[in-house]
Amino acid sequence: MDDKITIIHGAGGREMTEIIEKIIVAKTPPRLRTALNGYGLDVLDDGSTIRIGGKSIVFASDSFTIDPLFFPGGDIGHLAASGVLNDLVMMAADPVAFMDMIIVEEGLEKKILEEIVESMINVLRENNIALIGGDFKVMPKGKIDRIIISCTGIGLSDNPLIDRPRPGDKIVVTGPIAEHGAAILAARLGMLDENTSLRSDSRPLVKTVLPVIKKYREYITGARDPTRGGLAAILNEWSTQTGTTIVIDRASIPVREEVREFLDALGVDPLNVASEGVGVLSVRPEKVEDVVEKLKAMGEKPAIIGEVVEPPNNILRGRVVAVTEVGGRVIVRPNPLNLPRIC
Amino acid sequence: MDDKITIIHGAGGREMTEIIEKIIVAKTPPRLRTALNGYGLDVLDDGSTIRIGGKSIVFASDSFTIDPLFFPGGDIGHLAASGVLNDLVMMAADPVAFMDMIIVEEGLEKKILEEIVESMINVLRENNIALIGGDFKVMPKGKIDRIIISCTGIGLSDNPLIDRPRPGDKIVVTGPIAEHGAAILAARLGMLDENTSLRSDSRPLVKTVLPVIKKYREYITGARDPTRGGLAAILNEWSTQTGTTIVIDRASIPVREEVREFLDALGVDPLNVASEGVGVLSVRPEKVEDVVEKLKAMGEKPAIIGEVVEPPNNILRGRVVAVTEVGGRVIVRPNPLNLPRIC
Repeated sequence: MDDKITIIHGAGGREMTEIIEKIIVAKTPPRLRTALNGYGLDVLDDGSTIRIGGKSIVFASDSFTIDPLFFPGGDIGHLAASGVLNDLVMMAADPVAFMDMIIVEEGLEKKILEEIVESMINVLRENNIALIGGDFKVMPKGKIDRIIISCTGIGLSDNPLIDRPRPGDKIVVTGPIAEHGAAILAARLGMLDENTSLRSDSRPLVKTVLPVIKKYREYITGARDPTRGGLAAILNEWSTQTGTTIVIDRASIPVREEVREFLDALGVDPLNVASEGVGVLSVRPEKVEDVVEKLKAMGEKPAIIGEVVEPPNNILRGRVVAVTEVGGRVIVRPNPLNLPRIC
Repeated sequence: MDDKITIIHGAGGREMTEIIEKIIVAKTPPRLRTALNGYGLDVLDDGSTIRIGGKSIVFASDSFTIDPLFFPGGDIGHLAASGVLNDLVMMAADPVAFMDMIIVEEGLEKKILEEIVESMINVLRENNIALIGGDFKVMPKGKIDRIIISCTGIGLSDNPLIDRPRPGDKIVVTGPIAEHGAAILAARLGMLDENTSLRSDSRPLVKTVLPVIKKYREYITGARDPTRGGLAAILNEWSTQTGTTIVIDRASIPVREEVREFLDALGVDPLNVASEGVGVLSVRPEKVEDVVEKLKAMGEKPAIIGEVVEPPNNILRGRVVAVTEVGGRVIVRPNPLNLPRIC
């Protein structure tokens, strides 16, 4: 059935890029894909920008829908605020303001709404971000699954980071991956109990990762947060966009033991699983150790997991290869049909 | 059941203001209700602002959900773009950029999505607004009613219009009201046929009303588009916020004959019914005729419908009174339980 939208069209992989390209980008005239000399629809990065008075104003827009609404380590409100702030962080922007558009299903308990909104506002408050406006709507019972939060975050940057990784760059993750996706998956399978410590890493990176990105801005060629589609999606986007090959060393990718075992048991590759408190950076090699040290000093647990290389041949151009002691495997963009709705 | 969210909480009336005040505004520390010397959560106007380099950047965020998705005069995509642009117009801002967050139900026909997005982009294109970014998600079948579009519009203004109507001001509507709500209501009741010309007025006011607002900016003390809750909601907000009384002359309110008859037959007051291509302005009396003439010159069909007065007594403070030949009636904020989900 090629004429209908399926779950895979929203899952962060190739099919999503295709539909966005075909239905949205292609219908927008090139001159209307950017405004005021900023970055817009063409770059499909974490955010967009406009330029005013020598400053870049950076915008990140995202919708959040998740089941369950509350999970170990966070809730949909916490996730929405953290997710949008992290998109701004990955653009090297200082977040300054936030807008929320909340749609609620008739019959939702007020207490639940209150808890979710409070959780969202707490993230903003802890990071000194203003909530300057938004929208609130209610839909009849059955027309929406409890609550959807769409948000736009606004940040400022002297030099917004549009990803352009290049051969020689090292790939750094700022901490252990796949925590969020594993926790949500466990919750949905009813496998969370007192014996597990699986929990979402939902967390804003404004105080820890942003200062490092800003300090080493001229040596950082890419920054993304690996949410939908996980690390595999980001690295594939980077290699495809730049025509490079990205080689990663499986053994060096930080995955907490319990997360690894849980995902192994389900046959899910952690590379495909979302994080919500991690950044992936591509860094010029001469400063990668400094970046790692600085991230550690900020309390993160970073690791160098691979590098960007000139494609050794045409087959590997635009590809991601994960190498292990016993061989290597091309990591394709995730097919997430076997993954839960996690963001 | 006071502990659950009901449809009325999202309907644009007193209950909505209360829940937004209680759950969102009250939980946000006052210092975090604005950013960069702009207007924010405290004013609850059509939009919010930040100030950079002597310019105000204006933001309007809104979510759109409507049944039917396609209706005479427009569709949800046309409505979303027009609605957000009109919010910027009512802030006296030139729209420059737009972001869309689209959530689709699994199984929606691609053709329908394409048609909706194209319709949205056409509105942007006709008004020279860039689509600089957004988000696209798919939810499982039954978890959402076909499609929700949330948008953020970005505009620039030298002098953003935060509503402060004051005694002596005249109230102007830029054209016949209640067209959108009447058409949607008719569609939902299955009453649209070849004998009716009911159709939504969904339409951006960027080219016709914005130039007038900008030209007479210093004489215009308020501007809003009467969507959810209609004219009654806007006028009640104005009178409540300013402690004034707003007196309107029923006979002077432009309502197309067919719309009036249709709503009459259903017992629905046009004052409570949404427009999507109309502005309500409060204008200093010395320039109101000029404003009306200029609106006419731009092709609109404006009318002076009333004025803002000092409250004659405490009972009428913060109230709206509609006067007819046979008497008057206090117009309360709409109780929209008998109205369809129209925006």
